[in-house]
Amino acid sequence: MNKKVAIIMGSTSDLPVMQDAIDVLKELGIETYVDVVSAHRTPEKMYDFGKNAHKNGIAVIIAGAGGAAHLPGMVASLSPLPVVGVPVKSSNSIDGWDSVLSILQMPGGVPVATVALNGAKNAGILAAQIIGATQEDVRERIVAYKESLKEKVTKAAQEMRNNV
Amino acid sequence: MNKKVAIIMGSTSDLPVMQDAIDVLKELGIETYVDVVSAHRTPEKMYDFGKNAHKNGIAVIIAGAGGAAHLPGMVASLSPLPVVGVPVKSSNSIDGWDSVLSILQMPGGVPVATVALNGAKNAGILAAQIIGATQEDVRERIVAYKESLKEKVTKAAQEMRNNV
Amino acid sequence: MNKKVAIIMGSTSDLPVMQDAIDVLKELGIETYVDVVSAHRTPEKMYDFGKNAHKNGIAVIIAGAGGAAHLPGMVASLSPLPVVGVPVKSSNSIDGWDSVLSILQMPGGVPVATVALNGAKNAGILAAQIIGATQEDVRERIVAYKESLKEKVTKAAQEMRNNV
Amino acid sequence: MNKKVAIIMGSTSDLPVMQDAIDVLKELGIETYVDVVSAHRTPEKMYDFGKNAHKNGIAVIIAGAGGAAHLPGMVASLSPLPVVGVPVKSSNSIDGWDSVLSILQMPGGVPVATVALNGAKNAGILAAQIIGATQEDVRERIVAYKESLKEKVTKAAQEMRNNV
Amino acid sequence: MNKKVAIIMGSTSDLPVMQDAIDVLKELGIETYVDVVSAHRTPEKMYDFGKNAHKNGIAVIIAGAGGAAHLPGMVASLSPLPVVGVPVKSSNSIDGWDSVLSILQMPGGVPVATVALNGAKNAGILAAQIIGATQEDVRERIVAYKESLKEKVTKAAQEMRNNV
Amino acid sequence: MNKKVAIIMGSTSDLPVMQDAIDVLKELGIETYVDVVSAHRTPEKMYDFGKNAHKNGIAVIIAGAGGAAHLPGMVASLSPLPVVGVPVKSSNSIDGWDSVLSILQMPGGVPVATVALNGAKNAGILAAQIIGATQEDVRERIVAYKESLKEKVTKAAQEMRNNV
Amino acid sequence: MNKKVAIIMGSTSDLPVMQDAIDVLKELGIETYVDVVSAHRTPEKMYDFGKNAHKNGIAVIIAGAGGAAHLPGMVASLSPLPVVGVPVKSSNSIDGWDSVLSILQMPGGVPVATVALNGAKNAGILAAQIIGATQEDVRERIVAYKESLKEKVTKAAQEMRNNV
Amino acid sequence: MNKKVAIIMGSTSDLPVMQDAIDVLKELGIETYVDVVSAHRTPEKMYDFGKNAHKNGIAVIIAGAGGAAHLPGMVASLSPLPVVGVPVKSSNSIDGWDSVLSILQMPGGVPVATVALNGAKNAGILAAQIIGATQEDVRERIVAYKESLKEKVTKAAQEMRNNV
Repeated sequence: MNKKVAIIMGSTSDLPVMQDAIDVLKELGIETYVDVVSAHRTPEKMYDFGKNAHKNGIAVIIAGAGGAAHLPGMVASLSPLPVVGVPVKSSNSIDGWDSVLSILQMPGGVPVATVALNGAKNAGILAAQIIGATQEDVRERIVAYKESLKEKVTKAAQEMRNNV
Repeated sequence: MNKKVAIIMGSTSDLPVMQDAIDVLKELGIETYVDVVSAHRTPEKMYDFGKNAHKNGIAVIIAGAGGAAHLPGMVASLSPLPVVGVPVKSSNSIDGWDSVLSILQMPGGVPVATVALNGAKNAGILAAQIIGATQEDVRERIVAYKESLKEKVTKAAQEMRNNV
Repeated sequence: MNKKVAIIMGSTSDLPVMQDAIDVLKELGIETYVDVVSAHRTPEKMYDFGKNAHKNGIAVIIAGAGGAAHLPGMVASLSPLPVVGVPVKSSNSIDGWDSVLSILQMPGGVPVATVALNGAKNAGILAAQIIGATQEDVRERIVAYKESLKEKVTKAAQEMRNNV
Repeated sequence: MNKKVAIIMGSTSDLPVMQDAIDVLKELGIETYVDVVSAHRTPEKMYDFGKNAHKNGIAVIIAGAGGAAHLPGMVASLSPLPVVGVPVKSSNSIDGWDSVLSILQMPGGVPVATVALNGAKNAGILAAQIIGATQEDVRERIVAYKESLKEKVTKAAQEMRNNV
Repeated sequence: MNKKVAIIMGSTSDLPVMQDAIDVLKELGIETYVDVVSAHRTPEKMYDFGKNAHKNGIAVIIAGAGGAAHLPGMVASLSPLPVVGVPVKSSNSIDGWDSVLSILQMPGGVPVATVALNGAKNAGILAAQIIGATQEDVRERIVAYKESLKEKVTKAAQEMRNNV
Repeated sequence: MNKKVAIIMGSTSDLPVMQDAIDVLKELGIETYVDVVSAHRTPEKMYDFGKNAHKNGIAVIIAGAGGAAHLPGMVASLSPLPVVGVPVKSSNSIDGWDSVLSILQMPGGVPVATVALNGAKNAGILAAQIIGATQEDVRERIVAYKESLKEKVTKAAQEMRNNV
Repeated sequence: MNKKVAIIMGSTSDLPVMQDAIDVLKELGIETYVDVVSAHRTPEKMYDFGKNAHKNGIAVIIAGAGGAAHLPGMVASLSPLPVVGVPVKSSNSIDGWDSVLSILQMPGGVPVATVALNGAKNAGILAAQIIGATQEDVRERIVAYKESLKEKVTKAAQEMRNNV
Repeated sequence: MNKKVAIIMGSTSDLPVMQDAIDVLKELGIETYVDVVSAHRTPEKMYDFGKNAHKNGIAVIIAGAGGAAHLPGMVASLSPLPVVGVPVKSSNSIDGWDSVLSILQMPGGVPVATVALNGAKNAGILAAQIIGATQEDVRERIVAYKESLKEKVTKAAQEMRNNV
C-alpha cells in the first residue's frame, strides 16, 4: 500500500515555504519524496511524474507554486491521487491572489485540495490526515500532534495571563 | 476501517450546491452521511459531530457553508479526519470572497482542504481520492471516472468541430 | 449587574494589537479579563468560555483573531452577550481581507460588532459605549474621552498652522 | 434609563434592507425610533440627531447607508452612544465594498459596530444584545430567540435527512 | 510559412465567447483551426497539440478558458509559437478574477499575450496583427479594419449629435 | 471674487502627503489656507468650515483623509464650492481601498472630485485648473507648467537614450 | 469668458449613463456641448478636441468611458481645462474596477477629477460647481439645487415616518 | 521586412523594470529601439511614434507604464503593429491593480497583448515569438532559449535533491 507523500514545487525559490511541509511530515513519521517540477519549464517531467506517482509508492501529492500556479492543477489532471495545492506568494505576485485563485478555482472533475497562502505546514498535516483517513496508527499520531498544539496554546495563555 | 463520507452543511439553503457532492459520491460507489450542522446556530451539535465522526465509520468530512463560513474550520479543529471545505456563494455574500477566505485561510495546525466556490462536485471527487489514496478499488473507480470525463470532452470536441 | 469586559484573542501573537483595547478600557475605568482562547486549537476552552461568560460578571466580549478568524463568530454563537470582533492582520494574511470578511459576514441571527483592521482601541471604546448605553457614569467618561480627543486635534492643528 | 433603539438610514431606498432591523427589534420587544437622516443631503438634521439622541431616551443607534456611507461614522462622532453600522448594497455600488469599507475602517477614537453587508437583522439583534448587556430581562429574550433559531435549524435538518 | 491561427478552448461552453475570434479572423481573411482542448480533462491531447502546432502550419495559438485557466499557459510552455490567452468568465467564477490572473501572471520565460475578460474579438485581431508584424498584406487589412471602426464611431457620433 | 484654495486634512499625520498640494499651488502662484479639520474628532469645526468657506475668499477646497475618509464628502455636503478629495494611505488601511472608495463613491447630488491615492500634487493642479477654468492668467500658468513637465520628460528621455 | 461644459464619451453605448450629466447641467442653466470621442478608435479627433476645447468656449470637460478608460486621462493631458472623469460600468467590465482605476490613478502632473462609478449626475454638478467657483450666479443656483435635494429628502422622510 | 522591437516606457522610473525586455531581446539576437514616451506628458511624441513605428522598421512595440497606464492602449490605437503591454507596479499604485486593469481591459477593436505585473522579460520573449511566428530562424532561437530554461531548472532540481 502506498504511504509516501511527494512534495513538489515549481521552482527552488519555493523551497523556504515548502520546507514546512517536509518538516511536519517528518515530525509525523511519514516518508517524503521531494523534487522541483516546473509545469511551464519542464512540462515533460511533470507529465511523467503525474502519470506515474501512484505506481511509485506515493499516496498523496503536495504541489506548491506561485503566480499563475498551474502545477497543482495539472498534476491533479494527470494523477488519480489526491493533490494538495499550496499557493506560494512569489515576488511580483499580485498580493498572492494569483496563486490562490489559479490553484483553488479548478473546474468540475479535477479537484485540488487548496490550503492557505504559504500554508505548507497545513499541507503536510492534511497529507498525513489523508493517509490517516484509512490508517489508524497515522491518525493516532495526528491526534497526539493536535493535543500538543493545545498544550502549547494553553501554556502560552497561562504565561500571558501571568504578565498582563 | 472507516469508509463513509460525511457531507454536512450550515443550512438547508446550501443543499442545492452540496447535492453535487452527494451525487458524485453515489456515482463512485461510496456511502455517505448527510446532515445540516450549523456552526453558529447549533454549536453543540457541531461539537458532538466533530468529536465523534471518526468513531462512527466516517473517513472524510465534507463541510459546506457560505458568508463567514466557520463550519469547515471548526469541524477540522474538532476532528482528526481530513476535512474538505466547500465555499458556498450565499445571498448577500460579497461575491463569494467571504466564504472562500474564511474557509481557506486556516492557521497552522488545522488544515481545511478547500475546493472552488460552489465546487461541491470536486469535494466529492476529492473525498473519493482521499479514500482511494490507500484503497486500490476506489482509486480504480476514480481512474475510470476521469477516463469518462475525457471521453465526454473528446466527443463534445468532435461534435463542435463538425459544426463550426 | 455585569460590568467587566473580556478581551480574548486567538494567539499570543495577537497581543501587540489587542493591548490597545486593554489600555483604553483601563483609561476609561472599566475592569477587564484577558485570555488566549483559540477557536481551532482549544475549542473546548472556547466552548466553556462562551457558554459561561455572562455568568461570570462579563458584560461585553472583545475577540481578536487573524486569517480565517472564527473566534469572534463562534463565541457570538455560544454567548448571549454582545461580541466585538477585531480583525487582526496576521503574517501570511491576504492583506487582512481574510480576517475582516470572516468576522464581518456573519449569518442572520448571530451578529459580531466588527471594528477596523487592527482596530483594538476602537473595540475597547465600543465596549465602554455598550456598557455606557445603560450606565450613566460610564457614558460620561466616554463624553470626556471624546472631548480630550477633540482637544488633542485642536492643539495639533494649531501647532501645524504655526509651522506651515 | 434609555431603552429605545433608533434606526436611521441615508435614504428611503434603504428601507427594504433596514426593515429587518425594525422587525427583529419588535419581535424582541424593544421600542424603536425610525427616521431618514442623510449625512450628505441633510447634514444639519444629522448633527442635531447625533448630538441629542442620548437625551431622548435612545440607548443604541443603528445607521444604514450605501456607497460612500458616512452616516454611521458621522453619527458615531457626534454621539456618545454605541452606533451599529449597516452597509447597504446600493445600485451603482462597487459590489458593496464601498459601503463596507467606509463604515468599517473608522479611525481610532470613533468606533462603529459594523455588521455584514445588508445585515440589518443582525444589527437589530446586536442592539438588543447591547441593551441586554446590562439588562437581565432583555438578555433572557435573546437567549430565547437564539434557542428558537436552533430549533428551526434542527427541524429543518430533520426534514432534509428524511428526504435526502 | 505558417499562416493559420489555431483557436482552442477548454470546454464547448466557451464557444459563445470564443466565436468572436473565429468571426473576426474570417473577416480579416485568415485561415483558422478550431478545437476543444482541455488542460485538465485531456492533458495528452493538449500535450500533442502544443508540441506540434508549429509543425502543422499554425503561426499563432489563441487559447480561451475559465476559472483556474491553465490551458493558455500550458500550451505556451509546450509551443514556441506566440500564445494569446482569453480569460473567459465562467459560471461560478469569482467575478472573472480567477481566469484573468491564472492566464496573465505567467512566470518569467513563458509569456501569454493576455487580452480582456471575454475579449475573444481582440484575441483574433491581435493574432492577425502578429501575422501582420512580418506580412505586409495582412497588416494592410488591419489598417483597413481599424479605418472601418473609426468610420462606424464617427457615423454613430454624428447620429447622436443630431438627436441629443 | 474668491481666489484662495483651502487645504484641509483629517489629521496632522496626513501632512507629509498633503504638502505636495501646498507646494504645487505655491509654484502656480495661488494663495492657500491650510488647516487640520477632523470629521470624526472635531465635527463642529468641520461644520463651521464647510458652511463658511465660500464666504471667506475660498474658491476651491482640497480635503485629504485616510481610512473611512468622511472629510471630503462631508465638506462637500456642507459647501457649495467644488471639493477635491485626496485618498491618503494611512497605516492599518486595507491597501488604500478604504479611503479611495469612501471618497469616490459619493451619492447623487454631492460630488467629490477624487484624485489618485496620495495624489495631493494632482489635487493642487486640479484646484488651479478649476480657478483657471474662468480665469485666463491662471490657465496660462497651467499651460506653462504642463510645458515644463514635457521638457523634463523630453530631457530625461534624451539622457536615457544616450545611456542605454 | 468660457462658460460651456463639454460632455464627451467613448461610445454611444455610454449615453444612457452620461445623459444624467446633460440633464442636470440643463437644470442648472449651463450650456453643454455633447459628442462621442473615442480615445482608441478616433485618436485624431480626440487630439483635436483636447487641444482646442479651451479655445471654443469650453470651461470644463466631462469625459465618460468604460473598461480600460483612457479618454478622460488623455484629454486631461491635451487640455489645460479641468477634466471630470466618469467611470462607466460597461459589459465585460471586471465589476467596474477597470474603469475606476484607469481614470482615477493618473500620474503626477495630469489630474482627472474622478466621480463615482456611473456617477454622471455628480459630474454635471461638479462641472457647475467649478464654474461657480468663480461665478456668483452659478454658485447661487447650486445652493438652490442643494436646498431642493434637502427638501426632497425631508419630505420623503416625513412620508416614511407616517407609514412605518 | 520589419524586424526591430521598440521598447517604450512612460517614465525613466520604469527603466529598472523594462531593462529585462531589452536584455532578453539582446540575448535572442533581436535589434531594439528604446525610448521614453509619456502618454500624458508628451502626447504629441506618442502620437508621432504610434503613427510611424511600422514605417521605421519596427515589427512589434513593447510599452510599459504604471498607475493609470494609458501608453500601451493609446499606442495600440495609433499603430497597426502588435503592442505588448507591461503593467509596471509604480509607487502609490494600488497594489498594481491599476496598471494591470488599465492595460488589459481594452475595448473591442484595439487589443494589447498584456503580460504579468512587472513582466518585462516575458514581454521581450513574446515580442521575439511574434517575429518568430513567421520567421524560422528566430523561432529556432526561442526553442533553444526554452531548452536552456529547462536545463537550468533540471540542474537546480538536482542540486536541491542532493541537499534536502
